[in-house]
Amino acid sequence: MGIAVIYGSSRRSGNSEQLAKRLVDGFEADHIYLSEYDIQPIQDYRHSDKGAYPNDDYHAIIKRVLEQDKLVFATPIYWYGPSGLTKTFIDRWSQSLRENKAEFLAKLSAKSAWVLGVGDDAPHLKGIPLVQQFQYIFQYTGTAFEGYVLGRGNRPGDISQDHAALAAVDAIRKGWEERLEE
Amino acid sequence: MGIAVIYGSSRRSGNSEQLAKRLVDGFEADHIYLSEYDIQPIQDYRHSDKGAYPNDDYHAIIKRVLEQDKLVFATPIYWYGPSGLTKTFIDRWSQSLRENKAEFLAKLSAKSAWVLGVGDDAPHLKGIPLVQQFQYIFQYTGTAFEGYVLGRGNRPGDISQDHAALAAVDAIRKGWEERLEE
Amino acid sequence: MGIAVIYGSSRRSGNSEQLAKRLVDGFEADHIYLSEYDIQPIQDYRHSDKGAYPNDDYHAIIKRVLEQDKLVFATPIYWYGPSGLTKTFIDRWSQSLRENKAEFLAKLSAKSAWVLGVGDDAPHLKGIPLVQQFQYIFQYTGTAFEGYVLGRGNRPGDISQDHAALAAVDAIRKGWEERLEE
Amino acid sequence: MGIAVIYGSSRRSGNSEQLAKRLVDGFEADHIYLSEYDIQPIQDYRHSDKGAYPNDDYHAIIKRVLEQDKLVFATPIYWYGPSGLTKTFIDRWSQSLRENKAEFLAKLSAKSAWVLGVGDDAPHLKGIPLVQQFQYIFQYTGTAFEGYVLGRGNRPGDISQDHAALAAVDAIRKGWEERLEE
Repeated sequence: MGIAVIYGSSRRSGNSEQLAKRLVDGFEADHIYLSEYDIQPIQDYRHSDKGAYPNDDYHAIIKRVLEQDKLVFATPIYWYGPSGLTKTFIDRWSQSLRENKAEFLAKLSAKSAWVLGVGDDAPHLKGIPLVQQFQYIFQYTGTAFEGYVLGRGNRPGDISQDHAALAAVDAIRKGWEERLEE
Repeated sequence: MGIAVIYGSSRRSGNSEQLAKRLVDGFEADHIYLSEYDIQPIQDYRHSDKGAYPNDDYHAIIKRVLEQDKLVFATPIYWYGPSGLTKTFIDRWSQSLRENKAEFLAKLSAKSAWVLGVGDDAPHLKGIPLVQQFQYIFQYTGTAFEGYVLGRGNRPGDISQDHAALAAVDAIRKGWEERLEE
Repeated sequence: MGIAVIYGSSRRSGNSEQLAKRLVDGFEADHIYLSEYDIQPIQDYRHSDKGAYPNDDYHAIIKRVLEQDKLVFATPIYWYGPSGLTKTFIDRWSQSLRENKAEFLAKLSAKSAWVLGVGDDAPHLKGIPLVQQFQYIFQYTGTAFEGYVLGRGNRPGDISQDHAALAAVDAIRKGWEERLEE
Repeated sequence: MGIAVIYGSSRRSGNSEQLAKRLVDGFEADHIYLSEYDIQPIQDYRHSDKGAYPNDDYHAIIKRVLEQDKLVFATPIYWYGPSGLTKTFIDRWSQSLRENKAEFLAKLSAKSAWVLGVGDDAPHLKGIPLVQQFQYIFQYTGTAFEGYVLGRGNRPGDISQDHAALAAVDAIRKGWEERLEE
């Protein structure tokens, strides 16, 4: 089992993608670019008859995510939160809860997760609500929230100048490598 | 000028809607149910040639929002953040920034905003990242973030049992009424 | 059993005290003004021989706190956190953990808690870190963190103009009264 | 001008101290161990006649802090916030505001700051309120909040196993060295 990298940017090769690529380079990973798929907003059938869920790519994507044991969410910080693509994908987890809650949570609770968020407005401070949102998400799903990196970038490539973010990513890599060697 | 109420729920008549209706009852308000419109994810042209933005309902909706002087975001707390519908709508503000930044910010910075978030997992605590996300959003746009209410509800109607949330909503109403009388 | 109100202000009759008085008016309460007692900073003997703890008023105060079943922390927001008096008192809980962890946690985990914080710099937003700090404190001790009020005030008496804070306090009172009647 | 390192632990040679020593090793630094000084709680004379402030070590310490251009707060995470020693010291800044607000803020607004917090209960997540508290503190004083490190440690020496924290500290050092070379 390896790593599911869930890219939330609406563009390719941006800073959050670059940071994630550095993180997982050399590790077995399934790269999932949400912008390449059709994932519609959740329908809320919690308290009504269960109607049809959107017939889109959600099931295919969540299946790929659940097959890995490490999750890396790589999202640009859009308006101080995860991108709409990322959020809409996570909202759909409510569908999986409705379809098979026990199995869904059993799988997620066996995984570890990391979050990479890249923005250009003081991300080490203003990215904190994004981190705390994921903190509660993973607390609910029982997923171990191992770490996060808040990097600075605006123009593609900027992230390569954020030495603190690069060092943080390398420290995560180092931890993975050590566990592989055990 | 009145109030733009931006409903982020994917269902009608849920708790966040009920709370918002109590808040604006008797005031002039434009009720905007995001679930009734087609608003696609943002395209990121910040650092590429400006391509086409989605041909959907965004322009019509943001126009209605900008016509009012009070903004009320009424969103269910989905996965500890604003709903995907709400987030996707706000992500599109980047399009308005690209199209006419000065005018867009001039309008938003003249407005006041309130946020109503309703969830069922300790919303007074776990809704805090949502509040902080809006805090930074409004800080960026220069909008006065006057207040928020984090209410508890799951099944439609639950919110009517959250006396603290109802009292908070009534206190906001009272403030509006007093200013009207001045 | 009643309410322990722990006042953290260094002055008497300030806004946080006034808000707390409104909250507990008519209920059985033990009013504990930390400024009237000598509570020294914690000594950290976690990983050394246990030396002497300060011979001050801590034991007398914590005894009074533990005798009640509701805790109300009423603190001015000093520098965006609880007052030093409040923090120093809570730091000393580590002494109680060292002296009798099981009994201390058993008692605290049977209680409910509310926090009142009053400041004058956008307390509804900038008081959030204070709330989250208490969130983790009570999570550790197993205490039910029932609610909080972030009020605005600077000059004594200002709090009487913060209708949202007053309404929030009244809603807590209402909840207490309803439970008494059951 | 160099670095003022403000140690908030009640014990010497603990993890937060070790992390700070690694950070400033080789740089000109004034090491200020708050536990070695007498700093009493603030008296609040904001709205009363100005009485006597405590006759203790505060003035001597704040003078040393203001002489440097970089501030490093190294505090254990006690009860999910800065230590009482740290908080009580910062509370006293209100005295400096009362004594000479313009000069005090002019000096602090010309400085840069870093915060090191070390705890043993998920510090990367539960240390966030501490970070946000300092965020607002430095926002008020106009100090540039350049970065923070949340490290894990309980027994002295634990911090040397937290590779992410060590890497973060080294990245800050690297930034300092680069600026020195310019």
